[in-house]
Amino acid sequence: MSERLRATYWLETGDDPARAADVIAGEQSSGTFVALPSETPELKARSGARVERLEILDTAPTPSLPTPRQAKVFTRCLLELSWPIENLGACLPTLMATVAGNLFELRCVTGLRLMDLQLPPSFTAAYPGPAFGIDGTRKLAGVHEGPLIGTIIKPSVGLSPEETADQARLVIDGGIDFVKDDELQADGPHCPFDERARAVMRVVNEAAERTGKKAMVAFNLTGDLDKMRRRHDLVLALGGTCVMVCLNSVGIVGLLELRRHSQLPIHAHRAGWGYLTRSPALGWDYAPWQKIWRLTGADHLHVNGLGNKFSESDESVIAAARAVLAPVAESAPMTAMPVFSSGQTGLQAHDTYQALGRADLIHTAGGGIFGHPNGVPAGVEALRESWKAAMQGIPLAAHAAGVPSLASALEFWR
Amino acid sequence: MSERLRATYWLETGDDPARAADVIAGEQSSGTFVALPSETPELKARSGARVERLEILDTAPTPSLPTPRQAKVFTRCLLELSWPIENLGACLPTLMATVAGNLFELRCVTGLRLMDLQLPPSFTAAYPGPAFGIDGTRKLAGVHEGPLIGTIIKPSVGLSPEETADQARLVIDGGIDFVKDDELQADGPHCPFDERARAVMRVVNEAAERTGKKAMVAFNLTGDLDKMRRRHDLVLALGGTCVMVCLNSVGIVGLLELRRHSQLPIHAHRAGWGYLTRSPALGWDYAPWQKIWRLTGADHLHVNGLGNKFSESDESVIAAARAVLAPVAESAPMTAMPVFSSGQTGLQAHDTYQALGRADLIHTAGGGIFGHPNGVPAGVEALRESWKAAMQGIPLAAHAAGVPSLASALEFWR
Repeated sequence: MSERLRATYWLETGDDPARAADVIAGEQSSGTFVALPSETPELKARSGARVERLEILDTAPTPSLPTPRQAKVFTRCLLELSWPIENLGACLPTLMATVAGNLFELRCVTGLRLMDLQLPPSFTAAYPGPAFGIDGTRKLAGVHEGPLIGTIIKPSVGLSPEETADQARLVIDGGIDFVKDDELQADGPHCPFDERARAVMRVVNEAAERTGKKAMVAFNLTGDLDKMRRRHDLVLALGGTCVMVCLNSVGIVGLLELRRHSQLPIHAHRAGWGYLTRSPALGWDYAPWQKIWRLTGADHLHVNGLGNKFSESDESVIAAARAVLAPVAESAPMTAMPVFSSGQTGLQAHDTYQALGRADLIHTAGGGIFGHPNGVPAGVEALRESWKAAMQGIPLAAHAAGVPSLASALEFWR
Repeated sequence: MSERLRATYWLETGDDPARAADVIAGEQSSGTFVALPSETPELKARSGARVERLEILDTAPTPSLPTPRQAKVFTRCLLELSWPIENLGACLPTLMATVAGNLFELRCVTGLRLMDLQLPPSFTAAYPGPAFGIDGTRKLAGVHEGPLIGTIIKPSVGLSPEETADQARLVIDGGIDFVKDDELQADGPHCPFDERARAVMRVVNEAAERTGKKAMVAFNLTGDLDKMRRRHDLVLALGGTCVMVCLNSVGIVGLLELRRHSQLPIHAHRAGWGYLTRSPALGWDYAPWQKIWRLTGADHLHVNGLGNKFSESDESVIAAARAVLAPVAESAPMTAMPVFSSGQTGLQAHDTYQALGRADLIHTAGGGIFGHPNGVPAGVEALRESWKAAMQGIPLAAHAAGVPSLASALEFWR
């Protein structure tokens, strides 16, 4: 028996679901719109995608997505397909065309969403996965338990390199573990990458010499390949410990080449994720999507945060974080670190910890740190103490009784 | 005045549209969820995105996309934003994070779709654009007027290299201009790229020696970068004249590196386009999307076809083809060739020509050629004759009176 890869979809169709499943399986393997004499039974048995499971969920009177093909009822189901690995080999780009190619626009489809992806050992073995993951990141950041407490430089764009370094100094002097560029800040003429990296690393290195703690700064090197490589080399030469890249901006080949070149953890930003996921009847769930990027080499992956300022539900955020912490496959753990952000404070620590059962994550807060009445160091401490309380199972208010920075934080976080 | 780039969106919001527009502009430039003292008026004036136009279109009682923020009415509008080029420089990957980053998931947004993108001269000048475009493709294919008549090897996957070459021989002996691999067929163990390219190019070269006409074959080299380069070199060495790549599979960095390396036209497949576009309230229109890929280097771009077997309307197909034939910017024509496919026959020639006013395109048919009762050469001739009729303004039936292959085709195309 040959190895097979498997993808699970939420499917809505106005057709007979079994027929729609066959159409999708055919279109994504050896079939096409019409029966061809050259698609022999032997060829189909060898190369065709197979319907492994078709489970009816419910029905709806109207289609989720516009369709030229009307029907009286639209059936929603879970559809699992499998493909023989011989069709494509261990190739992520062709995996994309296979599991997420020309199927979303099929006429029999009024909703299609990729929910899960299972890859055989020969496939996962062909990709490098994250070079640092949780352990490597903890080592470089010098944070051996609890989350990395982090923040983002704001305003996102508009600061000069020196002004950026001034912002970084505030949090680094405050004892922060992790700082990142905004995804909009890469190498614009107003804040060139090289000058920014030099100015910020001067602050990082000075603080490290003074305190023994080197803050991890994720410099956004997103760009053309030669520039990304050159920027990485500069960060490395300056003693930096992390680089950041926007996944939807550079694509699989971009991340894979960066992974091959990089000697630093890759902080992976999901900017644009909304257009892939926000229609519940279309596109991608986070679980299969993040697998592709972890195989390619992402060490840290953004998952939004509980009580975030976007439209994503807490349930979806936790599912995303759990997916990042789960193995890519049994034979390929490739564990990465989830990054929580957006409107975060210590108030989310308990719920986040309870939902995950672990603290192998980066928790970034902006206002939740900068807004502390006693200054940035107190803000960093308050967020860290919230996590200590969460991990020790102590209610936040009780823990705050002995920690003044947390007590003051509780006032303004609410 | 600094140069600015502009993006136009279809926006739906339950908030006051002017406030929603400001939130989007802020989030994608110097603002964030809360007002920051460091976002000074000077900084905002210099680096902020600007609302250039906000035109109310209509309202709806329910939101198009799920939202945690309910409202009595949801307003739809056209929103044009502009950004100073100083924020990002001429960088396509960071353009993606800027115009299509973290904005689709904003709470005030219940629908957001990127409709148009206007880039200043300094931006377009930094990218190569297609190396061959219409003229270069025509020259290599030896087709100086009318469309390139093309087909796709079917079954998509499952044929061995020799079986693929046998299929190719049928159409090449039939006088076809253009042949392409399916997007599912790249370099799987069952049909390795190198063997397939060698077997097919043997057929192409033999026919070219015999007839003086070399069919253009778009070999799907989609994969990791080193493999794409090596496969390109093989196709070139074998005397091939085209390579194909799946855009959503390799990403911007993948295409850009291939463009830098390639000495052949790049046939760009849009597999996966459905998940970016099929929800009318989310994602991408084709016009801005194809601009990004033309800047990066795509010579041929898929646009589906009139009367296609997918869910896309004819109106949308024609809008896409017109976008591909229009200049990327005034200072950067970067014209590429639209590729029509999916259930195509000569019956679509008149309407396609009438809608575009030109025939600088690739028209691929499968069943429309293979199904001809007098064989493949008659099928190729019939499709070509349909275009002659279309371009000369002769009704198809009238032209068929003097062309037996067309007369028979009209029977089975209907």
